[in-house]
Amino acid sequence: MTSRAQTQTLSDDPLGGTVRRTVLPNGLRILTEAIPAMRSVSFGVWVGIGSRDETPTLSGVSHFLEHLLFKGTKRRSALDISAQIEAVGGETNAFTAKEYTCYYARVLDADLPLAIDVVCDLVTDSVLTEADVETERGVILEEIAMHDDEPGDEVHDVFTEAVYGNHPLGRQISGSVPTISALTRKQIDGFYRRRYRPETMVIAAAGNLDHAKVVKAVRAAFDRAGWSDTAVPTARRSRTAKVPTRSGQVVVRNKDTEQAHLVLGCTGYPRQHDDRFALGALNNVLGGGMSSRLFQQIREQRGLAYSVYSFTSQYSDSGLFGVYAGCAPGKVEEVLAITREELARVASDGLTAEEVERGKGMLKGAVVLGLEDTGSRMSRLGKGELLYDELLTVDDVLRRVDAVTPEQVRRVTEELLARPMSLALIGDFDDGAFADALG
Amino acid sequence: MTSRAQTQTLSDDPLGGTVRRTVLPNGLRILTEAIPAMRSVSFGVWVGIGSRDETPTLSGVSHFLEHLLFKGTKRRSALDISAQIEAVGGETNAFTAKEYTCYYARVLDADLPLAIDVVCDLVTDSVLTEADVETERGVILEEIAMHDDEPGDEVHDVFTEAVYGNHPLGRQISGSVPTISALTRKQIDGFYRRRYRPETMVIAAAGNLDHAKVVKAVRAAFDRAGWSDTAVPTARRSRTAKVPTRSGQVVVRNKDTEQAHLVLGCTGYPRQHDDRFALGALNNVLGGGMSSRLFQQIREQRGLAYSVYSFTSQYSDSGLFGVYAGCAPGKVEEVLAITREELARVASDGLTAEEVERGKGMLKGAVVLGLEDTGSRMSRLGKGELLYDELLTVDDVLRRVDAVTPEQVRRVTEELLARPMSLALIGDFDDGAFADALG
Repeated sequence: MTSRAQTQTLSDDPLGGTVRRTVLPNGLRILTEAIPAMRSVSFGVWVGIGSRDETPTLSGVSHFLEHLLFKGTKRRSALDISAQIEAVGGETNAFTAKEYTCYYARVLDADLPLAIDVVCDLVTDSVLTEADVETERGVILEEIAMHDDEPGDEVHDVFTEAVYGNHPLGRQISGSVPTISALTRKQIDGFYRRRYRPETMVIAAAGNLDHAKVVKAVRAAFDRAGWSDTAVPTARRSRTAKVPTRSGQVVVRNKDTEQAHLVLGCTGYPRQHDDRFALGALNNVLGGGMSSRLFQQIREQRGLAYSVYSFTSQYSDSGLFGVYAGCAPGKVEEVLAITREELARVASDGLTAEEVERGKGMLKGAVVLGLEDTGSRMSRLGKGELLYDELLTVDDVLRRVDAVTPEQVRRVTEELLARPMSLALIGDFDDGAFADALG
Repeated sequence: MTSRAQTQTLSDDPLGGTVRRTVLPNGLRILTEAIPAMRSVSFGVWVGIGSRDETPTLSGVSHFLEHLLFKGTKRRSALDISAQIEAVGGETNAFTAKEYTCYYARVLDADLPLAIDVVCDLVTDSVLTEADVETERGVILEEIAMHDDEPGDEVHDVFTEAVYGNHPLGRQISGSVPTISALTRKQIDGFYRRRYRPETMVIAAAGNLDHAKVVKAVRAAFDRAGWSDTAVPTARRSRTAKVPTRSGQVVVRNKDTEQAHLVLGCTGYPRQHDDRFALGALNNVLGGGMSSRLFQQIREQRGLAYSVYSFTSQYSDSGLFGVYAGCAPGKVEEVLAITREELARVASDGLTAEEVERGKGMLKGAVVLGLEDTGSRMSRLGKGELLYDELLTVDDVLRRVDAVTPEQVRRVTEELLARPMSLALIGDFDDGAFADALG
């Protein structure tokens, strides 16, 4: 008896195309959105494995593996992989996050079969030679060094570690110099074999495409690598570590920079929290745009910073909420005081009705304006299937944003700001500076 | 007698929409591309004034002015400007280049009248108060400080200055701490009044729009500010300074960074050079993608860098061509040696036919895949009208890329590499280090 693939039509979005979903007998999920008006197709393999699935010793292995998969398969050298896609004017790349890794290509519609073949080949059939592990180790150490030369980015890692401590979510996606220096080919290959399985993956594609052809081509590519429709054991998951509730931390990293780079914040909401759209509206009004309170107070009114914004991050069982600013070292106290004052004011008085409407307008605009290219539509499918229980249509999202009330936003603010606040700071400061900043 | 606007249809692009161009009697040019399938519209005002139009004393005034125009008009405060666009989910921003400045908004199609009103208002009717000049001076000094914390960006400025010396193209767009500290409201306002005139501007819009309505709304907005259809003197231009031919320079900026950041290069081609498509193909094959020679040699084969690429910049009468790499400080000699060896090899032996085809494929892919959103289509119109004598259709561009031959690419390489090479380097090096690197 041949196992059958199950296919369903999920939506026929007036703002996009027709979304179809097929589940292969081996557990591989394939989602496509057919948009005949586009000239390109984006194709991605989303793997539900990221840095939080690593033990401390293996820290950085997901990202190391992501690099190595481009180094060659049984059928293609590293140069073949990039040259085949680039010769037809396409692009291919990948990125690693805390809870997933994505490999993708964007090509003209006629070149989709090539893109499927190349991306599936590198994900399923990479050879990971000893020599490539050594070369790529050097590349990743340079990537870490480059990141350390960008204090505006680095301070976010310092903040994340301050909030999560030793929990896997607190570790850097790239790993550290010691862990990257120590990882062996055997460890990386073992991680690859154990974790990259059809049932931990989602295929997503959007653009001018035919669903049945995509399914057929993906199936052929997975068959070729021996990842065919046989039953496979479910990969073990290690996301059992409960996210700790830590007290507020102040972490200052001394560095000879021009600006002080600071992040002040706390834990936020997990990805599927009922109040996530209210938090999104709050984030927009507080520090999400040029009209936001923090931008107005810190930049427009006082000229204290060029870059100042609030942000949220979402994970399956946790999240982050924070404010970033880059300012003159002598202005850190003032920027912190204004930030804390604005946060307290929103928690006590709430936002005005006009502000809440603006925050909702920004959310809705980002949804609609953010879905004009095939790459973002492909990502919507991949993330929706892999990270959420449901794939909301664009209309569903807009309706849920519309339902947000000022009282809900006020409650969310009050709730968040009762949490322990942490401060991360990079700049030319003395040891012990700002130890009482959260007083 | 009423002066009449002149309108023509430029193209009806099978890959895009219908492009129309209207010239108002005051010299203002308005170009639109109507693409009914899109939900958004991008609207931009392109001003043919940038940092190279500044005297040494006024260095940074174009960029300072760009910031100030968002600070308020007779009808709108800074908060009004951003809040009105953000409330409808749109975004507005601006950027300053060496030869132009662009103010733009991206909104849902129904909100285009608002976007036109807001962007034209801030460009034509800004008030530039003393207080706003002082506040924004602080913001720009922080922007400069932030840039100085990003050595991978900063090294490009060091390189540009090495090649152009005291020529206006050699100066930073942002100006320097001394010039920004010294600029007065009177100087900035004088620059604004003299340089921002209808005949130095191009209006560009792309998306679901109606050309006649755009023209009408823009005309109303310019009339309101008194920039109506009266004859105006042509703004003086200061681009008479001939770009000097300097000998090769080595400029090392000592800084306590993790990586060494280097740029090696020379002058390239002006924007409209006949060989620009051949240079584009060369750039792609040499260092434009993952399959490029430098990426393969420096990253894939030896693991010496994470980020390594070649680049070109174009100005009206000059250009730049260079290679960037970020590597360990002890590997600079090796990276430089490999780079110079690859450049010499291409100049002597040329590229393979396969490489030239791949370089052309990358150019064509970038053209087609880069025009899926309204923002890039709007930019194509604005830049085409303001910076080129002609607006090539996408098909024209593809045809000119197809016409590039291997021999043309070899000749371009030989010609470029006969020019004096300069080296810019940021890292923790001694004074006088690498003084003989170009030997």
